[in-house]
Amino acid sequence: MKKRIITIGREFGSGGRTIGKMVSERLGIPCYDQELIEKLAEESGLSKDYIRDESEYASHSSWTAVAFSSVRSMGVPSNQDYLWAIQRKIILQLGEKENCVIVGRCADAILEDTADLLKVFIHADFEHRAARIVEKYGETEVPTEKRLREKDKRRALYYQFYTDLEWGKMDHYHVILDSGVLGLEKCADIICSLY
Amino acid sequence: MKKRIITIGREFGSGGRTIGKMVSERLGIPCYDQELIEKLAEESGLSKDYIRDESEYASHSSWTAVAFSSVRSMGVPSNQDYLWAIQRKIILQLGEKENCVIVGRCADAILEDTADLLKVFIHADFEHRAARIVEKYGETEVPTEKRLREKDKRRALYYQFYTDLEWGKMDHYHVILDSGVLGLEKCADIICSLY
Repeated sequence: MKKRIITIGREFGSGGRTIGKMVSERLGIPCYDQELIEKLAEESGLSKDYIRDESEYASHSSWTAVAFSSVRSMGVPSNQDYLWAIQRKIILQLGEKENCVIVGRCADAILEDTADLLKVFIHADFEHRAARIVEKYGETEVPTEKRLREKDKRRALYYQFYTDLEWGKMDHYHVILDSGVLGLEKCADIICSLY
Repeated sequence: MKKRIITIGREFGSGGRTIGKMVSERLGIPCYDQELIEKLAEESGLSKDYIRDESEYASHSSWTAVAFSSVRSMGVPSNQDYLWAIQRKIILQLGEKENCVIVGRCADAILEDTADLLKVFIHADFEHRAARIVEKYGETEVPTEKRLREKDKRRALYYQFYTDLEWGKMDHYHVILDSGVLGLEKCADIICSLY
């Protein structure tokens, strides 16, 4: 039987990762976020050579088609491709191993056919997100609005680049919640109630 | 104190109106859908002259700016403007009168500043919506896919024309639910739990 997996896409500063952790604790299943998946990828010993030899990646049409396109020059670093492939492999393995929550990393698109997904997206208005990132990460030289815009742009670009889908487009998600208005607890309630 | 109002936008065939009625019954508050609002507008005795004399409409910038634009020639009938103005007035009155559910009619945009809103949008994939409209309204000479596309296009155009906002865009809504995957009952559960 397919594993039941909650994927959470999120705007920067919307609290999506925190909600993922709350849900995971309440449901007693693990939560994998970007940090943890990167760590797993590191530990996995998967090397660039391994990825290069994987014909799945070498011949993937959208992969090769966009790899040298203008999108490439818009900010996605080329070694990101290797990291993506490794992370994709890790996420596919997680998707076969256990029920869990996965935050970000295009997990919704990667696991679409192999797991039983509840696809969630979390967003919030600028004010809520700005307050959250300043509280969480502090002020920086870069104005808050610019930090939000750039991070979201990178996420959207990353998602579109590797999945050929539009990030945050309603059609891809089962539940989309405004964490600014609803609050993180309530968002976690809803996700748990749907699991 | 502002009235607490649930607005439900929806793709054609997604069951948004049915969900609105379920929510209204469970919460014991009235539900106003397109049909009922049109009936109220008819009964209200508001005439074209009344609307024409209302300076709010006569001088409304987005109103006059787009009234003769290319959007106008794309399918919004000109007497729709009067109907819109009357319905807008009715919705503003409802928003001051009582807690309720309002389905469609741009109520979310109309009541943004005057009521305490829970803004919901319901969508579903093509297959679920097609099955639903055939079951509900029967087959017609027009292919199902075309019926869905045209109705959604009209709704999107109507919404954008009168509100200057993009229909179904995530930012405008507090909760967006896929009724095809979640089911109507579960959607109603979530909305009630947030009220």
